[in-house]
Amino acid sequence: MHTPKPVALVIDARYIVPIEPAGTLVDHSLVIDDGRIIALAPTASIERDYVAQVRVALPTHALIPGLVNAHTHAAMVLMRGIADDVPLKPWLEDHIWPREGRHVSPEFVADGTLHAAAEMLKGGITCANDMYFYPDAAAHAYEAAGMRALIGMPVLDFPTPYASDADVYLAKGFAARDAFKHSPRLAFALAPHAPYTVADETWRKIVMYARQLDLPIHTHIAETKTEVDNARAASGESPVLRLDRLGATGPSFIGVHAVHLQPPDIETLATQQCNVVHCPVSNMKLASGIAPVAALAARGINVALGTDGAASNNRLDLFSEMRIASLLAKVATEDAGTLPASAVLRMATLGGAIALGLEREIGSIAPGKHADVVAIDLSGVDVLPMYDPVSHLLHVAGREQVTDVWIGGERVVDARRLTTIDESAVAARARAWQQRLQ
Amino acid sequence: MHTPKPVALVIDARYIVPIEPAGTLVDHSLVIDDGRIIALAPTASIERDYVAQVRVALPTHALIPGLVNAHTHAAMVLMRGIADDVPLKPWLEDHIWPREGRHVSPEFVADGTLHAAAEMLKGGITCANDMYFYPDAAAHAYEAAGMRALIGMPVLDFPTPYASDADVYLAKGFAARDAFKHSPRLAFALAPHAPYTVADETWRKIVMYARQLDLPIHTHIAETKTEVDNARAASGESPVLRLDRLGATGPSFIGVHAVHLQPPDIETLATQQCNVVHCPVSNMKLASGIAPVAALAARGINVALGTDGAASNNRLDLFSEMRIASLLAKVATEDAGTLPASAVLRMATLGGAIALGLEREIGSIAPGKHADVVAIDLSGVDVLPMYDPVSHLLHVAGREQVTDVWIGGERVVDARRLTTIDESAVAARARAWQQRLQ
Repeated sequence: MHTPKPVALVIDARYIVPIEPAGTLVDHSLVIDDGRIIALAPTASIERDYVAQVRVALPTHALIPGLVNAHTHAAMVLMRGIADDVPLKPWLEDHIWPREGRHVSPEFVADGTLHAAAEMLKGGITCANDMYFYPDAAAHAYEAAGMRALIGMPVLDFPTPYASDADVYLAKGFAARDAFKHSPRLAFALAPHAPYTVADETWRKIVMYARQLDLPIHTHIAETKTEVDNARAASGESPVLRLDRLGATGPSFIGVHAVHLQPPDIETLATQQCNVVHCPVSNMKLASGIAPVAALAARGINVALGTDGAASNNRLDLFSEMRIASLLAKVATEDAGTLPASAVLRMATLGGAIALGLEREIGSIAPGKHADVVAIDLSGVDVLPMYDPVSHLLHVAGREQVTDVWIGGERVVDARRLTTIDESAVAARARAWQQRLQ
Repeated sequence: MHTPKPVALVIDARYIVPIEPAGTLVDHSLVIDDGRIIALAPTASIERDYVAQVRVALPTHALIPGLVNAHTHAAMVLMRGIADDVPLKPWLEDHIWPREGRHVSPEFVADGTLHAAAEMLKGGITCANDMYFYPDAAAHAYEAAGMRALIGMPVLDFPTPYASDADVYLAKGFAARDAFKHSPRLAFALAPHAPYTVADETWRKIVMYARQLDLPIHTHIAETKTEVDNARAASGESPVLRLDRLGATGPSFIGVHAVHLQPPDIETLATQQCNVVHCPVSNMKLASGIAPVAALAARGINVALGTDGAASNNRLDLFSEMRIASLLAKVATEDAGTLPASAVLRMATLGGAIALGLEREIGSIAPGKHADVVAIDLSGVDVLPMYDPVSHLLHVAGREQVTDVWIGGERVVDARRLTTIDESAVAARARAWQQRLQ
């Protein structure tokens, strides 16, 4: 005789887009136990095989893997819109850095990161790759939010209120990593800011630590033409080739922006199996340029998507990022077939997981992986009619259609409400910071 | 003694962005009577001067003029997502036109236009410039929705189920115009599809009617490189110069797309005081190219924004269109200062009104104009903090923040619900059409 297996949670969905394999399953259910996906099966067959402690019906929804925001400076959300319509250099030098110098503190990072987590979770982002000062404060906020994160341990070769030199940055980063080593949804990466702000000697230390401790390296690279021109003028070497010479490239290398690349750069990124994080909105808003993502993907390079910080975006919204990535690539390559919906949705999920070294844990809806899933309601007049759910997820849906989010089987967004974060408290803190920063 | 004046409606708003003059008014109120704006004054002074029949408080909102969608094919919403990631020519020839031939009918246009109106109203669009078959069915739907529209009377030089030749198209269009001549929120335009689908002889007739009846001419122009190359190969003349030779250009000319222009085209559009409608999402999605909107605006040409039809967008969403217009112009001109928030918000409101010849009636919050206004709630964690409401309206807010919409003083969206349209009936019709078209 056949006895149904007791499980924690079954989610019945009209559509499930597992990412791997590509395509859409209709009227299927996700079976979750102990925080992990244990099966994916037709809804009609569920009751024969499982008894769910909790069963959730999503009759007009698509269920997708949690989105991975593969590059952000979460706490900068407190500077959202503080200097818009300004290019990168004056934006950083005249607006952002002076304010960071005056205001950024553990309290700023704690409040800002929790705020960013609230925004990201409500928009279906279940995992973020973060790079900012006071990573311990950020880690605490992500833990409180129940969100998955790869926390960058920032390194710069100039002093800030956070740290006086590269060794102090590194020591503080490792202390944060030690403090959160048992936190199940957190991991840490080395986060040297960029080739132009970190000298060779420091890069060598970072590479040494990355090898010894098996840590990803998360850095900005080739974001602006000025950066690349200056690097070539100084040493004749492009930023990518310099980091390759220093040993930083490899499958654990997460290179953000990668806008201004020459063929040898692309060859190096491909040969070394590096990951590139595409941040189209930030690159457009700061007029940095158009990253050749279709060419990178065609060369076999893993491409993920990031929002960058909310000061240069100004939304922490991967739905908008996905749609704009596809639109921008089409017009840039003069081919409407470039970056179709399925490819971009993969970048925002499995591509992000691969970039963060988490592809065995998250990034697709597959048995054995964490139950990080997002429900998107596709029944509104702003969505209907619908001929292909995958295409609609890219070209039609927005984060406003996200209704429910689970991380490790925990429902962190329930009918559009956060269960782990007090939204009105977050809003009140944001208004207080606005007064101070203004 | 001072007696307060009785008025129909007063709206107290935290922020009002009147568009003209530029900037933001804080804690002001809008006074409305008989469907028109009669005053704009500090909220603190209102009770001394006015007694409102209805008073509405918007303590965390920005109030802006209703958005003008200056180019759409509303009824095509029923083909939303039917063929994505495909270039314009096969998209039209293999996917759209065959389905239009089989399915487009007065019933299709009535259902599709009402659906599009529902989507547009909820997203803060109060006026649309529409071009599609069966304009009588479209007019009826806009009237039922309480929405303002300029209805195109379509003209093609090839037969469709709607009409057999240009004279029949024109006769049917004028019959629709006659039927709705007393409809207070509707006006009509001549809408020849494009230079490449309408021959000189027909253009001459259209120009004659436009002159006699003082009607705008609404047409696609220079959308793709192929269109312009073919025109030059055939006659040596660009589409813009050809229409200028035929007398079609002028202040009532609404040229849509205007992607592939040479300096003489831009000079002609400027000299003739033509209007250009920029549809960035459609141009990107179909890989048509990037319209030189910053250059056009700098030359003094009025630029408006349009969503195009939902089959090539796939949202009828001017918030998304505004943001992408700004981002695309910045990256295309390599200048982050291009198309700042205030300029784009003006395009989407007053720019649209000017294009449609309605700038004395709508497009800004000014005494004497129709009370077409939209409330956007700026209090959520996905919006806060906020340093500049105008910048936030472009770079942060989305249509999901629209809470209330008035047209001619009538509240057509009340706390996110449509008052003029049965949303569930619209959704049911969309699902029925989806079955038929699939």
